[in-house]
Amino acid sequence: MFKMKKLIIFLLLINSSQAFSQAKLTAKDIKVNEQRIEQRIFELAKFGKDSSGRGYRVAFTKGDQQARTWFAGLMKKAGLEVTIDYAGNIIGKRKGKNQSLKPIAFGSHIDMVPDGGNYDGCVGSIGALEIIEVLNENKIITEHPLEVIIFSNEEGGTIGSMAMAGHVTAEGLKQRSQSGLTMAEGIKAIGGNPDSIQYSTRKKGDIKAFLELHIEQGGILETSQIQIGVVEGIVGIVHWEITVDGFANHAGSTPMNMRKDALLAASKLVIAVNEATNSVPGKQVGTIGKIAAMPGAYNVIPGKVVMGLEIRDLSAKKIEKLFLDIEKRAATIATSSGTKITFERQPSSIKPALTDKAVQQTIIATAKKLGFTYQLMQSGAGHDTQELSLLAPVGMIFIPSVGGISHSPKEFSKAGDMANGANVLLQTILQLDKEQH
Amino acid sequence: MFKMKKLIIFLLLINSSQAFSQAKLTAKDIKVNEQRIEQRIFELAKFGKDSSGRGYRVAFTKGDQQARTWFAGLMKKAGLEVTIDYAGNIIGKRKGKNQSLKPIAFGSHIDMVPDGGNYDGCVGSIGALEIIEVLNENKIITEHPLEVIIFSNEEGGTIGSMAMAGHVTAEGLKQRSQSGLTMAEGIKAIGGNPDSIQYSTRKKGDIKAFLELHIEQGGILETSQIQIGVVEGIVGIVHWEITVDGFANHAGSTPMNMRKDALLAASKLVIAVNEATNSVPGKQVGTIGKIAAMPGAYNVIPGKVVMGLEIRDLSAKKIEKLFLDIEKRAATIATSSGTKITFERQPSSIKPALTDKAVQQTIIATAKKLGFTYQLMQSGAGHDTQELSLLAPVGMIFIPSVGGISHSPKEFSKAGDMANGANVLLQTILQLDKEQH
Repeated sequence: MFKMKKLIIFLLLINSSQAFSQAKLTAKDIKVNEQRIEQRIFELAKFGKDSSGRGYRVAFTKGDQQARTWFAGLMKKAGLEVTIDYAGNIIGKRKGKNQSLKPIAFGSHIDMVPDGGNYDGCVGSIGALEIIEVLNENKIITEHPLEVIIFSNEEGGTIGSMAMAGHVTAEGLKQRSQSGLTMAEGIKAIGGNPDSIQYSTRKKGDIKAFLELHIEQGGILETSQIQIGVVEGIVGIVHWEITVDGFANHAGSTPMNMRKDALLAASKLVIAVNEATNSVPGKQVGTIGKIAAMPGAYNVIPGKVVMGLEIRDLSAKKIEKLFLDIEKRAATIATSSGTKITFERQPSSIKPALTDKAVQQTIIATAKKLGFTYQLMQSGAGHDTQELSLLAPVGMIFIPSVGGISHSPKEFSKAGDMANGANVLLQTILQLDKEQH
Repeated sequence: MFKMKKLIIFLLLINSSQAFSQAKLTAKDIKVNEQRIEQRIFELAKFGKDSSGRGYRVAFTKGDQQARTWFAGLMKKAGLEVTIDYAGNIIGKRKGKNQSLKPIAFGSHIDMVPDGGNYDGCVGSIGALEIIEVLNENKIITEHPLEVIIFSNEEGGTIGSMAMAGHVTAEGLKQRSQSGLTMAEGIKAIGGNPDSIQYSTRKKGDIKAFLELHIEQGGILETSQIQIGVVEGIVGIVHWEITVDGFANHAGSTPMNMRKDALLAASKLVIAVNEATNSVPGKQVGTIGKIAAMPGAYNVIPGKVVMGLEIRDLSAKKIEKLFLDIEKRAATIATSSGTKITFERQPSSIKPALTDKAVQQTIIATAKKLGFTYQLMQSGAGHDTQELSLLAPVGMIFIPSVGGISHSPKEFSKAGDMANGANVLLQTILQLDKEQH
């Protein structure tokens, strides 16, 4: 029995060491299956259509629920231990050789905006599952446990990842989602439990690293013909409502030099926002996306204009500095036009989230090893990674979006680009797995 | 009998000549009753209120009907022969000594815009009636017959005066007025007959002259402290719908230098319209009164902007020249911003209407004689006089509007200014009456 036991242990050791050396040898060369990735993108796209056949896999809707069931099925088929947490996140666990190590987590989301595209979130979700498939096919067991996470309702406010970071409030749960259901009702509809949502919070430091593969949703990579974007961080967002008060008057009987035209002043401010944003080097963006002029008739000089200003940057300080510049320019415009310009900061503002420098370096080293062109860039759009950055070192890998188009049925990424991104994700995970903590 | 007859004729001649010399003597010095004018402005203001007590004497409504009945009663009391024509215009005739002469007509309107003021139209209507009262009190019979005209539905498209000029169409009668009734139903409600409206047309040359006293509806007279505005003409109005096509994109992930921001281009065009309008001397006005940016969200770069451009001037040629300049500037903006800018001329355009030079001169001479300051000016707003200019020599007398405010409950003109205007109207009529045609 003793000998027998020893032998078994010995055999196990050989086996494990064989497996390990086999993994070591193969791991460098294993590749994701490009066809399978694209095939699954097409399959996922079938879920959630509105009556006119457009994509409507909005979180919590029937289409979202069906897609989640299908996706969780694939995860189980791939051997993952699948659970739905209280926030409705789908979590698929794969054991590591050393279960005392923190898990390496990766994933994205499969819900979409109304009339959205088939790549935003989906590439990262299917890419994450692809990592598991390839590891299975090559019989590789990582040292660290792995977790594939499909976050709930990303497009409606990164609800799933916010819950993990402990940011969902009772007030937030009462808000109506795009589906028509409140957040609480929606979470219930996908198998979560809003009453216990606080238990879906993950403790800071419990995850070794979180990685998200995503389409760029912009045109930088495509324009520069770069294959991989290494995300430095997700920009902070601040919104202001701007009100320009002039004086509404008869457009026929009020001479040009007696007007206090709120729209003329507002137009100068739109240009000033653009000029201020472009006046300093960097990747900051400043946008006036909405405008209303009152009363709004051909024959009345606008007396009041309300606009929406958005500034995004990786540095909260830079956002504030740019805003001060805009405010200063607005004061000059107000004085010269006889109008009053006021700014009201909106509560919807979001702080910048930086990715982990070491994880960035691992992604860069991986991209180099695989022979891909790459560049450091910021994410102008929000992602679940933002919330995860409060819990763990995070990294994001971007792939090109054709035409820079996103949140549109025209959203498209080439199969080769998706495979490149998934290969970088795979090799980055294997590299991080070598770190014994 | 013969002698007797001769004597009677002689006595009649003496009488007539006495009356004439008495009139001649008095006519120069007779003045309108300032208190009566203001008192009637206040009385008229009581008609037509909405549930919250704001002025709502919109044409064809109950308030309009009641005010018309009250006003026609005053006209009858003043000895006028009152009729309602097929278009609902109230016409009050006063015989002249020489009924073969063409009538001198004058008047305005008593309907108002929703939440409007108590002076627009009312000053000219009550002022016209005041002329009759003063002539009666001073026992003056003019050579020419006189006509006081209170036009129907001025604010809803100068319907009454359009009917006189033969411009009301079957299509126009079907349009819904602000009252909720169609134009045809409304005309019926105030005692007209839309089926016979063509018979309310006046023949060109049948009226010796038409005069309208009106508030300025702008701030020129008040600012320059001028008592009387002598209107050179009513401006033409052309409307264009402007569409700026850019490209809607994610405001976070689209760098500043990769944008085709339709609102940024539109803002440059708003400024260009202002600059082009100010680039040539004259009284032309150019206004962008309405704007919509699509899709209209903080986080989306506007892909499309639709605006309304209005140009007004006394010269149709000048309007076209200014538009060509704006079009040229738009082309430059489109090229530099990568957008497409298109202009669509609207069917609502109105041709300029000039007042009669000789009538202008009579008004000027009268103002001078009465010791009033005056200035030639254009009317930026439309008036019934516009339609009448197609039938007869016309003239318009403006008085100051406090603060230049109009179409608002804050609309106000001082009693003294109203009396000044009515006195100019009175003496201009008496002056025109001296012309033996």
